[in-house]
Amino acid sequence: METVRGVARGNRKAISRAITMLEDDLPGSRSVYSGLYRMAGSSFVVGVTGAPGAGKSTLVNCLVREYRSKGEKVGVIAVDPSSPLSGGALLGDRVRMLDHAQDKGVFIRSVASRGSGGGLSRATRKVVVALDAAKYGVIFIETVGAGQTELDVMKVADTTLVVLMPQAGDEVQAIKAGLMETGDIFVMNKSDLEGADRAALQIAPFIRERDGWRPPVIKTVARSCIGTAELVASIQAHRKRLGQSRKKDSQRALDEVKDALRHMTESLTNGAGRDREMARVLPLVEKRDMDPDTAAETIIGRLLGGRPARRG
Amino acid sequence: METVRGVARGNRKAISRAITMLEDDLPGSRSVYSGLYRMAGSSFVVGVTGAPGAGKSTLVNCLVREYRSKGEKVGVIAVDPSSPLSGGALLGDRVRMLDHAQDKGVFIRSVASRGSGGGLSRATRKVVVALDAAKYGVIFIETVGAGQTELDVMKVADTTLVVLMPQAGDEVQAIKAGLMETGDIFVMNKSDLEGADRAALQIAPFIRERDGWRPPVIKTVARSCIGTAELVASIQAHRKRLGQSRKKDSQRALDEVKDALRHMTESLTNGAGRDREMARVLPLVEKRDMDPDTAAETIIGRLLGGRPARRG
Repeated sequence: METVRGVARGNRKAISRAITMLEDDLPGSRSVYSGLYRMAGSSFVVGVTGAPGAGKSTLVNCLVREYRSKGEKVGVIAVDPSSPLSGGALLGDRVRMLDHAQDKGVFIRSVASRGSGGGLSRATRKVVVALDAAKYGVIFIETVGAGQTELDVMKVADTTLVVLMPQAGDEVQAIKAGLMETGDIFVMNKSDLEGADRAALQIAPFIRERDGWRPPVIKTVARSCIGTAELVASIQAHRKRLGQSRKKDSQRALDEVKDALRHMTESLTNGAGRDREMARVLPLVEKRDMDPDTAAETIIGRLLGGRPARRG
Repeated sequence: METVRGVARGNRKAISRAITMLEDDLPGSRSVYSGLYRMAGSSFVVGVTGAPGAGKSTLVNCLVREYRSKGEKVGVIAVDPSSPLSGGALLGDRVRMLDHAQDKGVFIRSVASRGSGGGLSRATRKVVVALDAAKYGVIFIETVGAGQTELDVMKVADTTLVVLMPQAGDEVQAIKAGLMETGDIFVMNKSDLEGADRAALQIAPFIRERDGWRPPVIKTVARSCIGTAELVASIQAHRKRLGQSRKKDSQRALDEVKDALRHMTESLTNGAGRDREMARVLPLVEKRDMDPDTAAETIIGRLLGGRPARRG
């Protein structure tokens, strides 16, 4: 299909079109997704989370520069659970900050909430698949804050950076918010500020080794891209470690299918489509021309398949 | 089909077999349910709820006698959300109390929880449909207690009796537990005990008129079947009132289809069947031979229809 071929060639318009199709569930999106999914699987996905103001965007800006200097094509996905809109339109200040907006080797896209929390990680996964199929070798997922929804989105990442800063009480918040279990690498940004060493020491006892990897704490000053080469080295070390494990692909597959199942079943019990199909069958049930189980199957069949599911 | 015809003839073995088929979702149960559902719709369903010890079983015993004396065939469904078992086996003390165990015009069946609360009202509805199709003109649904699960089951009833007793602080509990919104008729049982009049007075201000019906408070002494003729008169008055409204059938259809949808979608995201189907598709997703959406649709299709649902 033309869109899939365009994405494979790295055509930016085709990538944008594909993402919009997937997000809006437009006709043909299923076969586009299927085609892209088969081509994907070689990108490395880095999640960047942490409280607002910790300097995540500035840090991503530096990391993009580091990876571009190695010749990698880089994708950036800006996730904003608080916004009801989606698509390329609302990148906002975060993305305008990037030096790379004109760089053809960088693709920037925002993903916003359309109501459901589960939908956000699903939408993020779909953008990852599109950029992955287009051979963006490293993909950053950056969140606005670090709420539960955003931590869920981090499951999409291979390596998760938790960005903290001194003086903000960030270390206490991080310990409270479950960020310590999320991070594969901790970044103490703005480490030129007073208290950086103390803050790093405070979180250290809460960092636990997982699967043979002990998350390091890397000090950076993202404003000047200080420490970001060391951060990249740490990311690459974690990537290498993951590459030695077969667990990653099966965990990803499980998460993705569960997300898809959850999304589909939610659409069965809520939403306009459900109500419309319900209105079609209820008069039959009311007159006892159809039993409720058959009615429910008919609704599910129409919502999922365009025709009623039947029992063998 | 033979089972459906047997139920239509009122054959007790056929009714038992049909109920077991529906409860255990045995092969052929779908067409049995469909057949029974078409024949059903003429029975009147009376729910009886209230705290344990209020005398619900004894009261139902009297009510069965009243309706039998009018020549009605009567069904009794004993709902026990605390028991993990189901089927005719565990009727227990409640049903042994009934004078009517040998009466061919009375059919007694218990319904127990199989884990899910939603499943209990669904299971109860199915037993109602079977007894309704077998022309049991009045069906009592009796609960053990009055928890939220049991109040949900009361939605299956046309008329709900809330049974209280004096001295137990029942009136306060009833007001707390949302029983006041559930009852179409309040029964102050054991009204020969001291404080019955005061207890009746205490609940009166909390009783609200709904759809032009003001729930009465009827005093009974179920141990001696005192007041139960008056109670039957009140039930019949409520039945007549309902018969004047067209709302009942559409509300029932809506509740039934929602129950069926909920049950089916729960089976999609939980349970052994889900895990089995998941295990079949995950290796394909892991190897990227199948995308997660197609995998989820395949799982749903297999669980619901024996073959994959497809998008038109």
